[in-house]
Amino acid sequence: MALPTFSSPQRKLILAGVSLLATFIVGLLIGRFAIPPQENGADLNGVPRAIIQEADDTVHEKLASRIRAENIRENLRQLTSKPHLAGTPADYIQAKELADLWMQQGFDDVTITPYEVLMSYPDPAKPNVVRVRGQNDEILYESPLTEAILTPRENVPGVVPPFNAYSANGTVTGDLVYVNYGRDEDFKYVTEDVNINVTGKIAIVRYGKIFRGDKAKAAQKYGAIGLIIYSDPADYAKGANSSDVYPHSWWLPPTGAQRGTLFVTEGDHETPGYPSIDTAYRVPESQINLPAIPVHPISYGEAENIMKYMSGSAVTPDWTGGMDIVYRYGPGFSNQTLKHVEMRISTRNQRNVTYNTIGIITGAVEPDRYVILGNHRDAWVFGAMDPSSGTAAMMEAARVMAEMVSSGEWRPRRSLVFCSWGAEEYGDLGSFEWVEEYMKNLGARTVAYLNVDIAVSGNYSLSVGATPLLNRAVYEAAKRVVGPRGEESLYNEWLKAAPHVVSGQLSQPRIDPPGSGSDHDPFLLKAGITVANFGYKSESPYPLYHSVYETFYAMEQFYDPDFKIHASVTSFWVELARSLSDSLVLPYNVSDYGVLLEQSRLHLDNEYGPILRVNVANYSALESYIQDFKRVAADFINSLGAVDRNNPLAVRAINDQMMQLERTFMDPAGLPGRAYHKHVVLAPNMYNAYAASSFPGLVDLLGQLDASRDHDSQWKPIKKNFSILLFIIHSATSSLKDFSHFVFK
Amino acid sequence: MALPTFSSPQRKLILAGVSLLATFIVGLLIGRFAIPPQENGADLNGVPRAIIQEADDTVHEKLASRIRAENIRENLRQLTSKPHLAGTPADYIQAKELADLWMQQGFDDVTITPYEVLMSYPDPAKPNVVRVRGQNDEILYESPLTEAILTPRENVPGVVPPFNAYSANGTVTGDLVYVNYGRDEDFKYVTEDVNINVTGKIAIVRYGKIFRGDKAKAAQKYGAIGLIIYSDPADYAKGANSSDVYPHSWWLPPTGAQRGTLFVTEGDHETPGYPSIDTAYRVPESQINLPAIPVHPISYGEAENIMKYMSGSAVTPDWTGGMDIVYRYGPGFSNQTLKHVEMRISTRNQRNVTYNTIGIITGAVEPDRYVILGNHRDAWVFGAMDPSSGTAAMMEAARVMAEMVSSGEWRPRRSLVFCSWGAEEYGDLGSFEWVEEYMKNLGARTVAYLNVDIAVSGNYSLSVGATPLLNRAVYEAAKRVVGPRGEESLYNEWLKAAPHVVSGQLSQPRIDPPGSGSDHDPFLLKAGITVANFGYKSESPYPLYHSVYETFYAMEQFYDPDFKIHASVTSFWVELARSLSDSLVLPYNVSDYGVLLEQSRLHLDNEYGPILRVNVANYSALESYIQDFKRVAADFINSLGAVDRNNPLAVRAINDQMMQLERTFMDPAGLPGRAYHKHVVLAPNMYNAYAASSFPGLVDLLGQLDASRDHDSQWKPIKKNFSILLFIIHSATSSLKDFSHFVFK
Repeated sequence: MALPTFSSPQRKLILAGVSLLATFIVGLLIGRFAIPPQENGADLNGVPRAIIQEADDTVHEKLASRIRAENIRENLRQLTSKPHLAGTPADYIQAKELADLWMQQGFDDVTITPYEVLMSYPDPAKPNVVRVRGQNDEILYESPLTEAILTPRENVPGVVPPFNAYSANGTVTGDLVYVNYGRDEDFKYVTEDVNINVTGKIAIVRYGKIFRGDKAKAAQKYGAIGLIIYSDPADYAKGANSSDVYPHSWWLPPTGAQRGTLFVTEGDHETPGYPSIDTAYRVPESQINLPAIPVHPISYGEAENIMKYMSGSAVTPDWTGGMDIVYRYGPGFSNQTLKHVEMRISTRNQRNVTYNTIGIITGAVEPDRYVILGNHRDAWVFGAMDPSSGTAAMMEAARVMAEMVSSGEWRPRRSLVFCSWGAEEYGDLGSFEWVEEYMKNLGARTVAYLNVDIAVSGNYSLSVGATPLLNRAVYEAAKRVVGPRGEESLYNEWLKAAPHVVSGQLSQPRIDPPGSGSDHDPFLLKAGITVANFGYKSESPYPLYHSVYETFYAMEQFYDPDFKIHASVTSFWVELARSLSDSLVLPYNVSDYGVLLEQSRLHLDNEYGPILRVNVANYSALESYIQDFKRVAADFINSLGAVDRNNPLAVRAINDQMMQLERTFMDPAGLPGRAYHKHVVLAPNMYNAYAASSFPGLVDLLGQLDASRDHDSQWKPIKKNFSILLFIIHSATSSLKDFSHFVFK
Repeated sequence: MALPTFSSPQRKLILAGVSLLATFIVGLLIGRFAIPPQENGADLNGVPRAIIQEADDTVHEKLASRIRAENIRENLRQLTSKPHLAGTPADYIQAKELADLWMQQGFDDVTITPYEVLMSYPDPAKPNVVRVRGQNDEILYESPLTEAILTPRENVPGVVPPFNAYSANGTVTGDLVYVNYGRDEDFKYVTEDVNINVTGKIAIVRYGKIFRGDKAKAAQKYGAIGLIIYSDPADYAKGANSSDVYPHSWWLPPTGAQRGTLFVTEGDHETPGYPSIDTAYRVPESQINLPAIPVHPISYGEAENIMKYMSGSAVTPDWTGGMDIVYRYGPGFSNQTLKHVEMRISTRNQRNVTYNTIGIITGAVEPDRYVILGNHRDAWVFGAMDPSSGTAAMMEAARVMAEMVSSGEWRPRRSLVFCSWGAEEYGDLGSFEWVEEYMKNLGARTVAYLNVDIAVSGNYSLSVGATPLLNRAVYEAAKRVVGPRGEESLYNEWLKAAPHVVSGQLSQPRIDPPGSGSDHDPFLLKAGITVANFGYKSESPYPLYHSVYETFYAMEQFYDPDFKIHASVTSFWVELARSLSDSLVLPYNVSDYGVLLEQSRLHLDNEYGPILRVNVANYSALESYIQDFKRVAADFINSLGAVDRNNPLAVRAINDQMMQLERTFMDPAGLPGRAYHKHVVLAPNMYNAYAASSFPGLVDLLGQLDASRDHDSQWKPIKKNFSILLFIIHSATSSLKDFSHFVFK
C-alpha cells in the first residue's frame, strides 16, 4: 500500500502536531527522570529523603568554627564564683540556670530530675578537728577548721571544710601509727614486719595509689579506731619549696586538704539497684556497709605538726614522703608531754535532694537513638577543674549544637542528650539513679555515652578511656580537631604525648579501658552502654584536687591561660558526638573488641597461665573463642560494604547489631561478690576503683587464691567464672553472626 | 512604554513557540507529578518500596486455603508411630527428619542445636516396682512393670515404663498413709487433725490440683520416705465403668499411669542461668535440690489393689476418690498378713543430648525482627496429644508458609522462626538452654513467641494464655479463622464456650495470663518476651495425659476424627504469626496491660487491702501509678494514628517501643526467693507452677505472713517488694512516654 500524501496545510498541521507531541514527550521524560522528584528536603513520594542520607560533612567545620575559648572562660568564671556542693541550694540553682539557658538556646526538651539520696556533711556547729592532747588532756595542737585563704577567689562564704563523706562520727583518742598509703599490704607490713598492732590505734596514711575508701576499709580491717589521711608533698608538691606552691604554682600548699567520699556502691546507698523515686524502699542506714570509724583528711602542714613528734623506728625509704621530718612508724609520740591524738568528727549522713539537668536535641531521623554527653555539676568547693572545666566545655558544646539547630542549619540524625549530673562526688548518685530509672529505654536505644568529668587538669595530653567499639571514632574525631598548641591536629599532639604500639600495628595514641570513678560507671557497668571518658591531663594527678584551691585563678594562671585546651577538648567532644549522631552507618569498629580480648587473654596467661592450664579443663578454649570472635568480627566488617545504604531498615539493623554488641558483654548476674558490676570484660579492678581490669571477675578470684585453704572450694568458683567468661565471648560472637546469619542474606 | 507589535508570521512563530512551551510544561508537570516514579515493586530512587508497604491482606486467605486437615492427620500418624522420649535416639532422628523436611520446603536456614542436659530414666535392667510384702517378707503383690497393651498402637518397642523423672533411687519399705492430693494442706491435715505422723512412712497421693513436684516436696517436708502418686478415677475416669474407658473412650483405663518430671527450675538443672554449651560449668549433682525420696506413679488399678487393705479410719468425703473401696488414711494395713509396702526405684539421672530444630524464613524487610513459633517434640511415649498434635500442626503451618515463600507468592516482612524443642518434659530444657544461649539477641529482636504444646486434647474450646499486648491480635486472628465446627469463626465458637466479661466492656472470649509449664516459660519469665500459648481443650485436663495410651488411635477415635480441630488451631497459629510478621505497625494493644494491672490490683486489694493500708506507707500509690500507666497508654494509642507511615524509621521506632514494653515488666534481680523468675506481673504462682499470679513476688510474701513471727522482719521485704512493683509500673509507663516524649514530636 502506497503511503498517503498530504497537502501543505495538512503537512503543517501534522508537523505542528508531531512537534507538540515530541515536545510533550521530551517534557514528560525530563519531568520524570531528569528532575529529582524532591528538592529542599521535600518528600520522595512521601518517604523522607533524610532517612537514607549520609552525614553532611560540612557540619563539622560549621560547628568547630563556632566554638569560642572566650565563652568557655566566661562559663568557668561564672561556675566557679561560688561553691556548689551537691545537696546545697547551689545544686538546684545551677541546675535551674542551665535548664533555662538550654531552653533559651533552642533545646527541644529540658527536664530537671530530682533525686533524694543519702549524702554526708560535716556539722557546722561542731567542726571536725584533729588534736594532740597532753598528759593532762590539755590541747597541745588543734588542726585548723578551714583551709587558709590564699587568694581572694577562696574568700567566699559557703566553703565546706575538708572532710571525708560517709565517715563515721564520734570522738576517738589513741596512739598514732603511720601506714604509708594505707593499702592492705601496708597494714600487713606494719603489723607483721614492724610488729605494731594497729588495733585500738589511730592510723595516719598518705593519699595516693588507691581509692581513699579502700584505705578506710583496710584501717578498719586491721582494727584501727580512726584514720587520718593527709596529702604528702612527695605526691602533691613534688620537690616544690614553700614559695613555689599555690598561689605561685599548681602545687598543693601546706594548708590544702583533699575532700572526698569514702564509700561508693551502686548509686544512692539507700536504694541499691533501684532509682530513688518518691516511693522507693530505702535500706535502713544500719544495714549499709558504711565506714565504721572516723576518717578525716588533713594537709601536709598539719600532718608535719603531728608526725614530727612520732616515736618508733624510722620507716623504710619507700615509706618516706616529702616532709622535712624523720618518718617513723609510731606507735605514739616520743615526747612524753604529748599523750595521744584525738579525732573529733561530726560528719553525718543526710538525705538531701540533688538535681540532674537533662537537655534534648531531638534527632531528625532516628529520635529514638541517643548520643549522650554527660558531665557532673557538683563540686566539693569551686571545682575549677573537677568538674567545672567539664561543665564549661559542655555548655559551649551545647550552645554551638543548639544554635545550629535553632538557626535551621542542621539537626542531628539521632537525638543528642546533654546530662548535667548532681552528686557525682558522693558516688555518681545523680547519674546512677537516672540510669536506674530509665535503664530499659537507655539500654535499647543508646548509641554512646560520652563523659567529661574534668575537661582540663593539666596541659600534657589528651587522655581517653573508651570501650573498644569507639576507638576508631575517637581517633577520627581527634584527627579533625585542632590541638591546644594550635599547630597540628589534636590527634598528632596526643600521639606524641601518649603513643601506644599495638602488637604488629602502627603506633596510635593510647586509649585505656574506661575504668570507673565517674558518671560513665552506671552506663557501662550496669547498662552495658558504650562509653568514652576523656579530658586533658598532666602526666600525674593534679595536686589541687578536691581542695579549696581548685579555683578559676589556678586554671587561668597555671593550666590554660587562653582556654585553648578547653576549646580543643570541646571541639573533640562535639565532633565525636556529631559523628555518632549523624553518621548513616554508626562509626563503631567491632574488631577492636577482639584486640582488647586478646590483650586481656595475654595478660591473664602471663600471670596465671600455668595454674589455669593445670586446674581448668577448658582453659585452651579461651584462645579459640577469642579467635572465633575476631574472625566473625572481621567478616562482619567485610560485609558492611554490602549493606544497601538505600534501605534505611537494613542500615538500622546493622547499627542495632553493633550497638547491642556492648550489651552482650554483660552478665546479668554480675561479677562474683559484686552483682552491680555486670561488664565481664571492662569492670574495674575490685580493689582499686580507678584501675581497669581484664576479665575482672576471674582475676579477682585468682587473686584471692590461698594455698592454705581447700583447693576445691577455691577452684570451683574459678571454673564457673571461667566458663561464664567463655559463654560471654561466645554470646558476643553469636550476636555478630546471629543464629540465622540473616542480616547480610 | 508601548507594547511591541508583531507581524502575522511572527505571531504564528510566537504562537507555535508558546504552544510548544505550554505543551512541554504540561508534559513536564505530568511527568513530574502524575506518573508514579515507580511501578511493579521497582525502587523508589533506590529505596525499596516494601519498607513502607502495609501487609497484603490477601495473604491470609492464600495461607488458610492451603492448610489441609489430612496433612496434619498424616503428620500425627508418623510422629506417633514410635516412642520419642528426649535423649533417646528418636530425639535426634525426629529432629533431623524435621530439619531435612524444612530445608526441602524452602526454609532459608535450618539448624539443629544440641544441648547436653541432665535427664532421668528408669534402669531397664532393674525395673521400678511397688510391692506389698507379707509378714515373712514374701511378695504378696507387685505392680506390673509396664502398662497393659490395649490396642495394637501401643505394641511397639521402646516404651519407657511409668516413672517420675528425677526421683531419688533406692528401696524403701514402710507403712502406707493416704494423703489425698498431696498438697501441703493435705499433709498438714493428716498430721494435725488425723494425728498420723508421716515421718518414716510411704505416702500415697492422687494426681491433680498441683504440680507433682510440689507433692514430692510436701511429702519430703513431712518426713515421708517414699511417695506413690496414682491417678484416681474420680479425676481421670469420671463415673466411667470399666467398659467405658480407653480403648472405648478417652477415659484413663485402670492400667494407665501418668509419667512426669518432679523437678523444674531454670532449664538444665546443672547449668542454671547459663546455656549448656560444651564449655559450661556444671553444678555438682549433690548441690542441686533434687527430690531426696523415691517417687513413683501407678495406675488406679494398682492403687486399688494396695489401698483396699489399708487400715485406719475412713477419710472425709472430699478425700474420697472414685475407686470402689473405702478410702482410709492408714497408717499401714488392717490385714495382719500384709506387712508393709516396698518401693524399689532405680530411676537415675543421666546427662544426655537433646536436640532443637530451628528453621528460619528470613523476613523480606525486617529480617532482624522475629516472630517465633514453638512446640516441643519430645514425648513420654507416643505423645499423640502432648506434644505431637502440636508438632503435626506446626509442620503444616511451616509447610504452607514455606511454600508460599518458595513459590515467590509471599515473603513475610519480619523473620519467622520455627522452633521444635527437645526435652520439654524434663523442664523446658531445650527451649531454656536456647533462650539462655541467644537471650541478648532474642530480647532485642523478638516480637512474639507463639507456643503450642498440645494442639488438641479436647473438643470443647480454644484455650489461650497470652500477655495482654497480644489480646487484640489473638482476637483478630480468631475472627478470621473458621472454627472446628465449620459453621462460624473460631472466635465465635470460642466466645460461646469461654465468654469473659471485662468490667464495663463487651463480652470477649477469655484469655488467661500465660502461666508457666511449657516452652514459653524462658521467653516470658527470663527474657521478657511477649508470648501466647494455646491449644484446643476439654473443660478439664485430659485423662490419658502422659500415659502410654496417648495414641493416634485415641486422637482419631475420640477427639478429632476429621482433624478439623487441628486444622482450625493451625490456621489460627498461622494467621496470628502472619499478622505479627506482616503488619506495618505491630498489632499490639498497649492498653490491655492497663486492664490486667488494674484487675491484679483489685485482686490484691480484695485479699490484702486492709493490712497493706496499715503497713505500707505508699499503698495508695499503686492505684495512681496504674492510672498513670492507663492514661499514658491511651495517649500512646491515640498518637499512633499520627505516625507517618511513609517514614519506615518512625514506624520502626513505635514498633520497637511497643515491643520493649514487655521487657519493662522485668526485674533483673528476679522475684524474692526465685531469681530466675523476673516478670514482676506475669510470673506464675510460687506454689503452683500451673497457676498464673498477679504481682507474684508480693503475693508470695504476703502469703507467707506468720503472726507468730517478728512483724518488722516480715514487713520489710514486703515494703521493699511493693516499692519495686511501683517502680516497675513506673518504668513501663515511662517507656511509653519516654523522658523526651520524642517519638511523636
